[in-house]
Amino acid sequence: MYLERIGSPADLKELDIEQLTCLAAEMRKALIDTISTTGGHLGSNLGIVELTIAIHHVFDTPRDKVVFDVSHQTACHKMLTGRRDAFLDPEKYGSVTGYSDPDESIYDIFKTGHTSTSVSLACGLAKARDIRGTRENVIAVIGDASLDGGQSFEALNCGSEIGTGLIIIVNDNDMSIAENHGYIHTHLARLRENDGRGGDNYFRALGYDYRFVRDGNDISQVVEALKAVKGTDHPVVVHVCTQKGNGFLPAETDKEKWHWAKPFDKETGEFRNTVARAGYASITADYLLNKMAKDPELVVVTSASPSCIGFNRANREKAGGQFLDVGICEQNAVSFTAALARGGCKAVYATNSTFIQRAYDQIEQEMCLGKCPMTLIVTHGSVYGHWNDVQNGLLDIALLGNIPNLVYLAPANRQEYLAMLDWSIGQDRLPVAIRMPGTPMTDADGRVDTDYSETGYEVKQKGSRVAVLALGGFFRLGEETVRLYEEKTGERATLVNPRFITGCDSRTLEELKKEHGIVVTIEDGILSGGFGGKIAGYYADSSMRVLSYGFSQEIPVRYEPPWLMERNRLTPACIVGDILDHIRDAVFL
Amino acid sequence: MYLERIGSPADLKELDIEQLTCLAAEMRKALIDTISTTGGHLGSNLGIVELTIAIHHVFDTPRDKVVFDVSHQTACHKMLTGRRDAFLDPEKYGSVTGYSDPDESIYDIFKTGHTSTSVSLACGLAKARDIRGTRENVIAVIGDASLDGGQSFEALNCGSEIGTGLIIIVNDNDMSIAENHGYIHTHLARLRENDGRGGDNYFRALGYDYRFVRDGNDISQVVEALKAVKGTDHPVVVHVCTQKGNGFLPAETDKEKWHWAKPFDKETGEFRNTVARAGYASITADYLLNKMAKDPELVVVTSASPSCIGFNRANREKAGGQFLDVGICEQNAVSFTAALARGGCKAVYATNSTFIQRAYDQIEQEMCLGKCPMTLIVTHGSVYGHWNDVQNGLLDIALLGNIPNLVYLAPANRQEYLAMLDWSIGQDRLPVAIRMPGTPMTDADGRVDTDYSETGYEVKQKGSRVAVLALGGFFRLGEETVRLYEEKTGERATLVNPRFITGCDSRTLEELKKEHGIVVTIEDGILSGGFGGKIAGYYADSSMRVLSYGFSQEIPVRYEPPWLMERNRLTPACIVGDILDHIRDAVFL
Repeated sequence: MYLERIGSPADLKELDIEQLTCLAAEMRKALIDTISTTGGHLGSNLGIVELTIAIHHVFDTPRDKVVFDVSHQTACHKMLTGRRDAFLDPEKYGSVTGYSDPDESIYDIFKTGHTSTSVSLACGLAKARDIRGTRENVIAVIGDASLDGGQSFEALNCGSEIGTGLIIIVNDNDMSIAENHGYIHTHLARLRENDGRGGDNYFRALGYDYRFVRDGNDISQVVEALKAVKGTDHPVVVHVCTQKGNGFLPAETDKEKWHWAKPFDKETGEFRNTVARAGYASITADYLLNKMAKDPELVVVTSASPSCIGFNRANREKAGGQFLDVGICEQNAVSFTAALARGGCKAVYATNSTFIQRAYDQIEQEMCLGKCPMTLIVTHGSVYGHWNDVQNGLLDIALLGNIPNLVYLAPANRQEYLAMLDWSIGQDRLPVAIRMPGTPMTDADGRVDTDYSETGYEVKQKGSRVAVLALGGFFRLGEETVRLYEEKTGERATLVNPRFITGCDSRTLEELKKEHGIVVTIEDGILSGGFGGKIAGYYADSSMRVLSYGFSQEIPVRYEPPWLMERNRLTPACIVGDILDHIRDAVFL
Repeated sequence: MYLERIGSPADLKELDIEQLTCLAAEMRKALIDTISTTGGHLGSNLGIVELTIAIHHVFDTPRDKVVFDVSHQTACHKMLTGRRDAFLDPEKYGSVTGYSDPDESIYDIFKTGHTSTSVSLACGLAKARDIRGTRENVIAVIGDASLDGGQSFEALNCGSEIGTGLIIIVNDNDMSIAENHGYIHTHLARLRENDGRGGDNYFRALGYDYRFVRDGNDISQVVEALKAVKGTDHPVVVHVCTQKGNGFLPAETDKEKWHWAKPFDKETGEFRNTVARAGYASITADYLLNKMAKDPELVVVTSASPSCIGFNRANREKAGGQFLDVGICEQNAVSFTAALARGGCKAVYATNSTFIQRAYDQIEQEMCLGKCPMTLIVTHGSVYGHWNDVQNGLLDIALLGNIPNLVYLAPANRQEYLAMLDWSIGQDRLPVAIRMPGTPMTDADGRVDTDYSETGYEVKQKGSRVAVLALGGFFRLGEETVRLYEEKTGERATLVNPRFITGCDSRTLEELKKEHGIVVTIEDGILSGGFGGKIAGYYADSSMRVLSYGFSQEIPVRYEPPWLMERNRLTPACIVGDILDHIRDAVFL
């Protein structure tokens, strides 16, 4: 077996094309073995096996520097850079992260988990090289879908102005997570059809030398192309056509399903544990499709993550022209959706908490300052959203919760979520964001309000001395906390569903002053800049004591949600313990 | 005079080319008259006179919809859409804002003040039109410099996929605020030289029909081109070459100086009130140039706003290859600078508070999560930064102050600012941002620290009962508040210079508990999510009362800073009054 002998990329140097091709087969098998057990990005890694081998065969890493965009496709890179055991030894499966990470290896230069940054990072490395007078190759490896993100254009524009040696490898597998959107993919398809020939070449227009590789899963073709550009003194794009899912038939056939695979049976290609459960994503799709059918002016926008609101292929087809995937471009998506609303449509845009970060400016400017009455659904905003640091769902409360004019809502259960969505789509006055709970779906225990135009918290249970304000998906934790408090003390605590992340319901907060000395806040996000801070700020000049629970800013590289909650004292036992300590210590109560 | 007769664009319909040309001369005179008195964007408006006339002559606004990018160039549009008196009657000079604003006119569809969004907004309007089955023209007018921003690429990519009628007018005056950077401008120059002909056309590569107008200051040429595209059923780019500053010789000659003009003498072209005063921008340039001369590995990056750190043309030339303008692309600028730092350079990026909004994701991911030891200088982060809502400097504390791993510093005076900058550039461990004070420059009254690697507040004066924590540029206000408090009460208050926006100096905050009952926080930013909230959060479970001063989220369309401060109780008299009220009411002190 060749793979076992590859301790570092240097060991690739002596292998010939035939041997490298055998290695590729071994790596493909290792990928399927590992990911069928652990789950992970399968399709993108299967497609890039030969390209990764060729890169490490031709270039002299780590002296030559390679930046993988978004790093969903670095499993092969990890296998070849001293981390093969994580893919060969079942005991060590999962011992490396799914992203590049300098703390893991000197071959990983950056932590990356968001798309379209690799060319910027490579430009910076190239400029640093020029300034410092060294002579290494700098290579960015960017997927075709990541070209959608405007930052890739910004960086291409920058790299060719700098003008010195820079190699951009476009790994063109003709897919995003779902199918690609944006005209650039029509352009790339034309280049593929014509073996890279033809006028009006996007990369040449931006000042790049351009080289085409027809079959990027043929090592000899890739090696030849990379040898030709090694040591270049000017910017060059190598357009490499690869096949997503290559070598595993189910993944070649249904590329969307196999972009990120759950653990699966290698023989049948069936996912294990696929008990279908209705979740917030699927009820969102059901609601929106039903609403679209009644209202032809309702338009729903995604930026390449349709599944976060349940728009699988069948649902996208049902929605027709009322559903629009604009590609990986959150900035454009927000401004575009704001303009849809200004143009008289009912307009909804949905994306992940971690990706909405890229559109803060457009949310603040076009959506909120201009008060365009669009609806933004924020998904995966939770400790349960993603279980790592590069994509985490814990920052959006602090990010969006302080934007002027925005109404940011945190529903606590299924009925409230749908009621908020329905209200927001129906109104034409306010920019509204709704944080889809990331915790398991629950049902309301009574009627929910249908109007959210005024900030108002809902008092679910009246008690005294202690009031618990438990936000959104953590409302259940608030309920459990109150129950435990009552068990321990025999006293009834007040329980509040705040519902609003933005704004303060001063009527309720004033009312609480009368019979309460302690207010507890609980939220599914970092504390700094968050909901608890607003409540603490409100009571700061009064005698009310506020105990806030949420996450510290230290988000581990990888984590299990229950472990991270425990570590942040986000359990009923910890919270009630703190309350009781407080009551004991405080003379004032 | 024609201009007096233009009550709305309908009045342009009957004028012939000769009459429209006379009108252009009148408008140019009105622009110079007005802006010489009020100050404003002169160069960009002088260049676009004929194009604006042609748009309103050819299209049927407001039914046809025009979106001006960033809207620095809407003065002519305002003159022709019922707002001419703001440019003809000195009594009414300045009665309109410098940006488009739907509250001002139905001809303004969006509030816009940040670049590169117009194509997204036009795409949204076009899609809404298609959904609703109306047939109006939708036109985006975007300057060549705004093409740098990746969002313009995202939107071009989106518009051609949608594929229906969309008109993008590229107003190519071959200038940004300073000279252009980015290869796209080399590309545009080649098109200009060849009358729009030649292969590898950027716009055609992205799926647009392309039309070239050689002299955009010749009304007949522009009218002809716009007539040809009116009613188009597919996306088209009209590339119009104009001259920035056209018709006013000083502005034609020095385009950078006249992009935004202070009030000036129309005859001599001299700015009035130009007493040169050293400010934070110029001491930054002096410091950095001096440092660069000693350290060839120090690189300073700007995204088209070199003047915010004093890099005028002469200073840019002095810095040579160690100063890099990457064009209007904050996202790329942050990732690029982070990579410079990772690549071993000492790396500084500077931009305005209002523009840094566009790079939150890159700051959170590449700069901070990856702990790249770059320095980010945030300028204009102050009520004094910009005096309007679309570009305001009041949000950055809430935006950046809650990012994990970031050290965000708020120097209170010149020496502290330079010491922080020097420390940050010298260290290689932490991602650091420094908020340049927007208030008038002051000097330290003693030595300042040289090491900021640990969060630590500086106690400037020890007192009891009341402690004032006055952040950054508002430290002076804290000093005045303490002085007035002492005058009124005869008691000495504690005065603290917090210096750190991120983190909490728990040692100092605990120490304050001993002899203080009231902590006052003062900051030059919105309160929501800000510094005061952190302090309130820190003391939330204690008996300390916290009074926080900063700005509400209601930022007026335009304002005078002292007025807005008064309105937010940011005066020594208001603050001391509140403290005294509090002491009176509270039995506990």
